[in-house]
Amino acid sequence: MQPRVDLITLGVPDLAAARRFYVEGLGWEPMTEVEGEIVFLQVGHGLALALFGAEDLEKDLGGTAPAGGPTGMTLAHNVGGEKEVVEVMNRAAAAGAAILKEPQPAAFGGFHGYFADPAGFRWEVCHNPGWSVGPDGRPAIVPVDG
Amino acid sequence: MQPRVDLITLGVPDLAAARRFYVEGLGWEPMTEVEGEIVFLQVGHGLALALFGAEDLEKDLGGTAPAGGPTGMTLAHNVGGEKEVVEVMNRAAAAGAAILKEPQPAAFGGFHGYFADPAGFRWEVCHNPGWSVGPDGRPAIVPVDG
Repeated sequence: MQPRVDLITLGVPDLAAARRFYVEGLGWEPMTEVEGEIVFLQVGHGLALALFGAEDLEKDLGGTAPAGGPTGMTLAHNVGGEKEVVEVMNRAAAAGAAILKEPQPAAFGGFHGYFADPAGFRWEVCHNPGWSVGPDGRPAIVPVDG
Repeated sequence: MQPRVDLITLGVPDLAAARRFYVEGLGWEPMTEVEGEIVFLQVGHGLALALFGAEDLEKDLGGTAPAGGPTGMTLAHNVGGEKEVVEVMNRAAAAGAAILKEPQPAAFGGFHGYFADPAGFRWEVCHNPGWSVGPDGRPAIVPVDG
């Protein structure tokens, strides 16, 4: 598993309030958004911050969040294909991670799994054929067929 | 405030276990570390992940974590000087952030403050004279005088 974070997802109880804060308040321009669902902001070279409904995030995780662990956000690591998702999940499990969601097709059309590190921090291992990073570091996300 | 995350800090209950998982388990090489205190790993272009004791992180935050909010981690935004720390904190407050720690000298020798976004996610606004990013995207952290 390469040492890389591609996406930080904040599970927010009120998406409109979060959007108001980051977009109108701080003046950050959305990279991509699906109204009422998710807002993506570029926060680094090849790095995105997603504002996503807290319940939607927990649903995407399969509702398996360990009680008492760090909650409300995930770090994502993108890889090039489904086989790599499985390999990285296996590597993480061998290193002592708890598997929260076995590798499987994802709602957005890609393929992913989730694990928790020993402290409970949650990582998504993801193949998203619609994710790319330009030479200037700008991530782009286009919808893929589910 | 520029849209940028420079550092993701995971507050871990067991630093040795976290180090074992990321360094020995996943094979990620520390960029910098202070034994028994903190481990920095490069996870992107100009982006670092810190493994830091959960209690140390809460202490650094001033013990003001809002009850029930997202816990256990922070996102950091680095700026060029003390004045900018104050400006960014003011901008965040004007946008509706809760100020958790007023701008002040930081234990590591720089200058920082903390705010929470409307969902409770915690951001550190930081001037760290010892932080630099190489042309290849590698962050470097050297100690500064406190």
